[in-house]
Amino acid sequence: MTPKKLSIIAFSGDFDKLTAAFTLATGAAATGYHVNIFFTFWGLDAIKCKRGRSPVGSGLLPRVFGILMGGLRVAPLSRFNFCGIGPKIFRSLMKKRNVATLEQLVEAACQLGIHLYACEMAMNVLGLKREDFIPEIRDVIGVPTFLALSEGGQTLFI
Amino acid sequence: MTPKKLSIIAFSGDFDKLTAAFTLATGAAATGYHVNIFFTFWGLDAIKCKRGRSPVGSGLLPRVFGILMGGLRVAPLSRFNFCGIGPKIFRSLMKKRNVATLEQLVEAACQLGIHLYACEMAMNVLGLKREDFIPEIRDVIGVPTFLALSEGGQTLFI
Amino acid sequence: MTPKKLSIIAFSGDFDKLTAAFTLATGAAATGYHVNIFFTFWGLDAIKCKRGRSPVGSGLLPRVFGILMGGLRVAPLSRFNFCGIGPKIFRSLMKKRNVATLEQLVEAACQLGIHLYACEMAMNVLGLKREDFIPEIRDVIGVPTFLALSEGGQTLFI
Repeated sequence: MTPKKLSIIAFSGDFDKLTAAFTLATGAAATGYHVNIFFTFWGLDAIKCKRGRSPVGSGLLPRVFGILMGGLRVAPLSRFNFCGIGPKIFRSLMKKRNVATLEQLVEAACQLGIHLYACEMAMNVLGLKREDFIPEIRDVIGVPTFLALSEGGQTLFI
Repeated sequence: MTPKKLSIIAFSGDFDKLTAAFTLATGAAATGYHVNIFFTFWGLDAIKCKRGRSPVGSGLLPRVFGILMGGLRVAPLSRFNFCGIGPKIFRSLMKKRNVATLEQLVEAACQLGIHLYACEMAMNVLGLKREDFIPEIRDVIGVPTFLALSEGGQTLFI
Repeated sequence: MTPKKLSIIAFSGDFDKLTAAFTLATGAAATGYHVNIFFTFWGLDAIKCKRGRSPVGSGLLPRVFGILMGGLRVAPLSRFNFCGIGPKIFRSLMKKRNVATLEQLVEAACQLGIHLYACEMAMNVLGLKREDFIPEIRDVIGVPTFLALSEGGQTLFI
């Protein structure tokens, strides 16, 4: 019997949406699902390695976007961001209530064998390279490959 | 024959997205689908009972978020919010055109037997309790239970 | 054998999300998928014909929303919009890297035989008519019809 499958297109770079994506992913993986996450556009932020966080991409414009995106530590909330104070409150709430933080969720995702993929097209647009990401990224793929991987399961766009 | 199934993860608290979620849900239920809605994060707003609307959650920080979230009557639009005027225009448009308003859609959802669930983790983070929600909420559940309920149908993240 | 199916509910009018929607849709269609896109709310922006772009809808309020929505040429980014400069940077990035622009993606979608549908309810709320859209729109449909069309495939809410 093939295992149940959950595939997530992680488009958003918002802290709360990424948290939701990883919570769903790890919850699914922990109960036996095969889970794929396909990071695209702003979602690529979640899988940047620390080294690559400040000067990402080549060319001036991608670099501007890269600095704006910044990585997990500065990911904004989709609501109530208040110049970055919102995510800090949220993060502190999560800690206080013993809920896993986003960094822990990324780590847990890797440990649970969730397959992480980076979107080739978005990397191309934003001037990002394979080296800008954490080594746990399984592959850089395009839409057709992602569709083939997610076939027969549930797919969410987050 | 098992009935067709639609499951919605209602993450957003935006007035327009909640309207879209409930329109899809009620449209599906009216044509024989079994429908689950799993409210999480800002989406929990849609199912708060009036009583619980001002002083929700325990502790200062959750209370701040609670006041900001406010409930259905003040749910913002994802675009063109203009300090709350946008939703009012939208609401008046909906009324003028005889489209169901969000409150009516929530009510219709309950009458159509749509199963409403609240996300345990998000309630924990935001300091919300079972009593803060309308009694029509079927259960407080986690991701694994939601995945089991939605298995074999279509699932949307809104 | 029935072909694989991908259905997209295009709710957002954001430039980056519409780009993601069309990239997924065209990528799927190019690899043999049957693809449906159901434009609703702000997503209706993507299929407005040029002629209909300034004075859309009847009545004052819908007209205000219509002008605000504006059409593809002024679609905002979901992040880093900066009063419209963001999308221009993004667009120029996309051109520089030889990625299809949004207008090209809409055109490609039509050529690849992707089925485009407009949401009746949202058109009603926003005061839009069939003539406001590009002729490639296959039909104006409601939720039940969309659900029937998308049944048995993967469905994304973008």
